[in-house]
Amino acid sequence: MSVPISGTVLIIGSGLLGASIGLALRRAGVRVVIDDQDESARDLAVERGAGQPWRADAGEVPTLVVVAVPPAAAGAVMARASAFAGATITDVTSVKQAPLAEALARGGDPVRIIGGHPMAGREASGAAAARPDLFDDRVWVVTPLPANSPERVDLVRDLALTCGAVPVVMSPDQHDQAVALTSHAPQVLSSLLAAQLLDADVDAVAVSGQGLRDMTRIAGSDPALWQAILGANADAVAAVLATLASDLDGVIDALRAAHPDAADDRVAVALERGVAGRARIPGKHGDDAADYDAVPVIIRDEPGELGRLFVAAGDLDVNLEDVRIDHVLGKPSGLVELSVRPESMQRLVEGLRSRGFDVRA
Amino acid sequence: MSVPISGTVLIIGSGLLGASIGLALRRAGVRVVIDDQDESARDLAVERGAGQPWRADAGEVPTLVVVAVPPAAAGAVMARASAFAGATITDVTSVKQAPLAEALARGGDPVRIIGGHPMAGREASGAAAARPDLFDDRVWVVTPLPANSPERVDLVRDLALTCGAVPVVMSPDQHDQAVALTSHAPQVLSSLLAAQLLDADVDAVAVSGQGLRDMTRIAGSDPALWQAILGANADAVAAVLATLASDLDGVIDALRAAHPDAADDRVAVALERGVAGRARIPGKHGDDAADYDAVPVIIRDEPGELGRLFVAAGDLDVNLEDVRIDHVLGKPSGLVELSVRPESMQRLVEGLRSRGFDVRA
Repeated sequence: MSVPISGTVLIIGSGLLGASIGLALRRAGVRVVIDDQDESARDLAVERGAGQPWRADAGEVPTLVVVAVPPAAAGAVMARASAFAGATITDVTSVKQAPLAEALARGGDPVRIIGGHPMAGREASGAAAARPDLFDDRVWVVTPLPANSPERVDLVRDLALTCGAVPVVMSPDQHDQAVALTSHAPQVLSSLLAAQLLDADVDAVAVSGQGLRDMTRIAGSDPALWQAILGANADAVAAVLATLASDLDGVIDALRAAHPDAADDRVAVALERGVAGRARIPGKHGDDAADYDAVPVIIRDEPGELGRLFVAAGDLDVNLEDVRIDHVLGKPSGLVELSVRPESMQRLVEGLRSRGFDVRA
Repeated sequence: MSVPISGTVLIIGSGLLGASIGLALRRAGVRVVIDDQDESARDLAVERGAGQPWRADAGEVPTLVVVAVPPAAAGAVMARASAFAGATITDVTSVKQAPLAEALARGGDPVRIIGGHPMAGREASGAAAARPDLFDDRVWVVTPLPANSPERVDLVRDLALTCGAVPVVMSPDQHDQAVALTSHAPQVLSSLLAAQLLDADVDAVAVSGQGLRDMTRIAGSDPALWQAILGANADAVAAVLATLASDLDGVIDALRAAHPDAADDRVAVALERGVAGRARIPGKHGDDAADYDAVPVIIRDEPGELGRLFVAAGDLDVNLEDVRIDHVLGKPSGLVELSVRPESMQRLVEGLRSRGFDVRA
């Protein structure tokens, strides 16, 4: 569906995202020029094949300017990029309202500036870590303002498509609220929950199950990076967390009022709302997550055992939608949970059993 | 390591857990008798092979009584079971202090009653769903009181071992605090977070990533079951949640005081504590979770592709410690993340690449 971008794309900033966009566009044959206030960083991106060095004196006017500088600088750089007559300007920061507001406050052209957020990254940073396929299959949110023309919005969507991403269009405000809800607030909760383990006995932590592991996985993320992200979207994150804190206080009150052996109905309501909310999360490829059945299988914990299991599933022509390995204590075996479409369930269970697998469905 | 239990085990309650314990003990050749106030339920368990019907008039005295009745009845039944002279008495409820206190208050023998909690279950219930291997490799917490002799504690540990489980000994109070922290409070948080999605736009939910999926997975659990569990451990759960709520209020305050582009240091501290807490969770088989490296691989979303990948890992003699499949929108491919020991990392990456896999490490 990608429409090649005609003309020149100027990328300002040659870090991981800027250089990866350059590589992705070059892969598609687009002319890319790169600028960076740090010439050695720019030279590294050029060496990696992310584009040609930008020459201000060459008289070239870019069709599209991609601002890929750190969040704190993005607004000012977008404003300055308005000097390129006619060019559409976009950025790649993970929060959208603050940099757009700053760009306009500094005289940026409200007609030509359109925010973007490719939802991809790596733990490594810099052009050395850049990859042309960094955005393949990832969501790239495009956040137009009312003054933007459809043609310019399409140009930013084409940028996303050319980079292999899936563009999703929403307003800057919608974006910031969406990531506050689906990414930033969950990060805070995961960190706070994991922090409760600091003072726990070793034995208490030893009974941790898969639920706790799932809920604290993102607590392992880089604190400095998240401090910056949460700061740039502080109001929206605080709003989500405040609603949640109020709900949490309600549950605590209800628990303290509990009769023996049965919590208050308010607890039941909270749990039921959780079931309903969970069901709203789209599954793989946008399908309904609730559409899958789970097939538990016990396997020996040895090289090749998972392979044998998945080859069997492939032989049975069953596509596995998800796989989870449950960790058990002290035994050389593991519980593997395969998620499949309901219509494949019986075929998988019977087929695996006939091949000698210990299926617990 | 299992020491066979000599004498007769009486199981009171023939639901999923009671009947599964019967099947597991019978598998090991132990004599099992079953009682249930519902005779047809007992008969079903007997038909399934979980043991012989208990006959009060036969004069038989059990060595061990396993009380496997619903949590609300467990204390009273343990007290009544003290009438079996000399028998050790245990239960299987998921909260330990409340039923033990009730058993003693009702005249149960403090020397012979020892709580237990096999951490296993199924979504199905009743003897029809019982399995002899339900407890294989699962943690079975044993919660002695000071009055219990080591021999009686060993008998309950032997019960766990004979059922294939891994016994972990802690006090009833430690147990209830441990599960409040590692299971019950996470359940509440997951439900509350998922509930925030109820009022969100479809587009906002569409940008959900793996982090949110992980954090809301257990929000799909049965509300009625969890209402009962949370009610029976209400004080301990409320205490964990209250500490967390206080930490949450601190983060909300810090976010509201945020400077543009950088959150307050209190946010950084919360995030850093999360990293440290997360690192305390034991990994597979009790190893340190932080010991694994992640190898991302892009595969086509077709039957057999996972099999091809895992066969390759097996051929390379690399044991996969964990597997995660990342869901992407609208593209017929998937990101699979393989967790391996650091010493296997290079062999896996090079071996997969040489076999044509798209490894993103």
